[in-house]
Amino acid sequence: MTSLFELQQHVITAWQRLQQQAPLVQCITNHVASQYVANVLLACGASPAMIDNPFEAKSFTQVVAALNINMGTPTEAQQQAAQISAQTAQELQKPWVLDPVGYGAVLAWRSQLVDQLLQYRPTVIRGNASEMNALTGSYGSSKGVDSTLNSSEVFTQASRLLAHCECVAISGESDYILTHNSPQIIEVNGGSALQPKMTATGCALGALIAAYCAVTSPLIATVAAHVHFAIAGQLAFAKTQSIGSFSVAFMDELFSLNREKLEQHMSIRFIN
Amino acid sequence: MTSLFELQQHVITAWQRLQQQAPLVQCITNHVASQYVANVLLACGASPAMIDNPFEAKSFTQVVAALNINMGTPTEAQQQAAQISAQTAQELQKPWVLDPVGYGAVLAWRSQLVDQLLQYRPTVIRGNASEMNALTGSYGSSKGVDSTLNSSEVFTQASRLLAHCECVAISGESDYILTHNSPQIIEVNGGSALQPKMTATGCALGALIAAYCAVTSPLIATVAAHVHFAIAGQLAFAKTQSIGSFSVAFMDELFSLNREKLEQHMSIRFIN
Amino acid sequence: MTSLFELQQHVITAWQRLQQQAPLVQCITNHVASQYVANVLLACGASPAMIDNPFEAKSFTQVVAALNINMGTPTEAQQQAAQISAQTAQELQKPWVLDPVGYGAVLAWRSQLVDQLLQYRPTVIRGNASEMNALTGSYGSSKGVDSTLNSSEVFTQASRLLAHCECVAISGESDYILTHNSPQIIEVNGGSALQPKMTATGCALGALIAAYCAVTSPLIATVAAHVHFAIAGQLAFAKTQSIGSFSVAFMDELFSLNREKLEQHMSIRFIN
Repeated sequence: MTSLFELQQHVITAWQRLQQQAPLVQCITNHVASQYVANVLLACGASPAMIDNPFEAKSFTQVVAALNINMGTPTEAQQQAAQISAQTAQELQKPWVLDPVGYGAVLAWRSQLVDQLLQYRPTVIRGNASEMNALTGSYGSSKGVDSTLNSSEVFTQASRLLAHCECVAISGESDYILTHNSPQIIEVNGGSALQPKMTATGCALGALIAAYCAVTSPLIATVAAHVHFAIAGQLAFAKTQSIGSFSVAFMDELFSLNREKLEQHMSIRFIN
Repeated sequence: MTSLFELQQHVITAWQRLQQQAPLVQCITNHVASQYVANVLLACGASPAMIDNPFEAKSFTQVVAALNINMGTPTEAQQQAAQISAQTAQELQKPWVLDPVGYGAVLAWRSQLVDQLLQYRPTVIRGNASEMNALTGSYGSSKGVDSTLNSSEVFTQASRLLAHCECVAISGESDYILTHNSPQIIEVNGGSALQPKMTATGCALGALIAAYCAVTSPLIATVAAHVHFAIAGQLAFAKTQSIGSFSVAFMDELFSLNREKLEQHMSIRFIN
Repeated sequence: MTSLFELQQHVITAWQRLQQQAPLVQCITNHVASQYVANVLLACGASPAMIDNPFEAKSFTQVVAALNINMGTPTEAQQQAAQISAQTAQELQKPWVLDPVGYGAVLAWRSQLVDQLLQYRPTVIRGNASEMNALTGSYGSSKGVDSTLNSSEVFTQASRLLAHCECVAISGESDYILTHNSPQIIEVNGGSALQPKMTATGCALGALIAAYCAVTSPLIATVAAHVHFAIAGQLAFAKTQSIGSFSVAFMDELFSLNREKLEQHMSIRFIN
């Protein structure tokens, strides 16, 4: 990655490929998010399939283009399916995204599941700062999961997660994306304060990263998914500031993204 | 069924009865679709209840007017509930609809569940062409599930499914409905290209067929449900072409269907 | 509770506190409702978390501000989680709401689960008249669950439920709230005839009662949640009378409630 301009062009190309290829994306996700995640993937150009039982996990992961695993409301069947599908994805070198929802000391069971899944080397790990700090904390830090970290500490900690994956994404008011290929951190801006008021937006973002991973490199895919969400959130908020209508407008904007909107509204920069 | 006009009148009468009777419809469906299916049934005039555990399946099927079974994200508990409810429906001669989501070689577990459910003789089997071909393929055809069939081959194959049910419906750009009573195939037109961009529309259509089966014959019910969706899709698309707002408009149109819209927009014909 | 004016002021204060404190509310709820319940809680100012597995139920209930248990589509894992979380809530004197969806003779399994949960003394029990009558019927009445009761009989029966909880709420065209503290029944008016045409509105109301219980007394919380829904339903219906757009407008109104709307539209009175 030599220049910001180059990265911007790659993001646009990734979006075009997503529309052309409509990759099949398997989502093992929670029952709160599953309908929304499927609709977001469809709106963005991908083809979702929520196969989450252990009896079909292997044969299905063998045919998909990418995999998203989200442990929001895990069941024992989903736990088994996640293990099988993650292992299959690794064996076949298919990209997969790990979204460790709620990772931390209070939710120990899912956190152990996530720890086990790390052995299958996710392509991308995404979460909010709290989840990512907790996940980092269990891998080399003695700080408690509730410690307040400043930005540079967050990045230092998150960079440790790169021992387990190709790319790390931290969602927040600004989003931060870290990778091996570059010492630089990529910041994505845009979005709106209303996105956290809709459930499952983070879950859908994880699935969208997986979809983009099917058509481009992990880093470009992760940036492209965050840009897709950031522009849609910004343009939807320009239309309406109430949560019900924002939710409709956000889906409209995810669907109607195009080259012109990407060129005009993409806000990414390298930091540190 | 002697004339197209007669069939159109039956569809209008079926819609009126659905509004008057608000039949209780049990849905054993997937976690992606369940909220949407319930909302579609409510909007169309039926009364949904998503009872899908094996401990209550028998007693509940005994009191419902119709049953919809959809194996989109099956669990072992749902598998047991589906067997019990399908058997109960058959014993009590209650109509039930089978929606073999994802049927095919890649998803063998659910496909076996579907095969087992066929013994309880669903009233209607519905799916897209790919699912119906796969289902047919396992019952009398040596062709692989991925074979590309021309239209007449699709109909020849689908007609074999009539050995297992009263009525077969194949969804697509145009919908096709086959039955025993007539050598003719009924084609339903309308809808919009945006419907496949919303998850669970097929699942909801299956449930709506079940609802209509509670108030009329299987053939009229199947045609009526497809007409209900086709008109709503067409009128919603006339209002908006973006997916978020289309989704809202589609629900509005499902809800506000009336005799005038049915008379003006119903597009059905006999083919072959 | 000495005056209606005082109660109205308490409701306004409760709404303000909900916005300020954004209490964390655990919901063990059904797969039909979970996305909608989470979105309603977010729109109303609370912070939802749908933790419903038995392995995390105890540790999570220990950190939440309130708990909502809804047995709409129970699984065995949810059954175990519900027992653990209800017991934990009782031990720690945290408020919890029981929503006995579908309680009655036809759905015996869930009804037994609900019976077992009563030992942990829910703070509030809510449901429609049919569910509440059935629940009452199994505790001291020999009448069948399908008996038709007049209003005074409903209240007499429902008041028996107060042996098990602090507050009882019966939803309908008008809502009725009973408590120990007062011989009076509180009636809440407003809403719209379209609310029953959206699935999961009752489930979301139960979760919202739990959220309000985290910031005020059980009685005020129950009244405030019903008022919040009643005003939003009434104002949404004034904007649109079709179900898709009403659903969007209802979410907008839940989100944009404020002191002025509360003062202008709150409709509560004491009866009998």
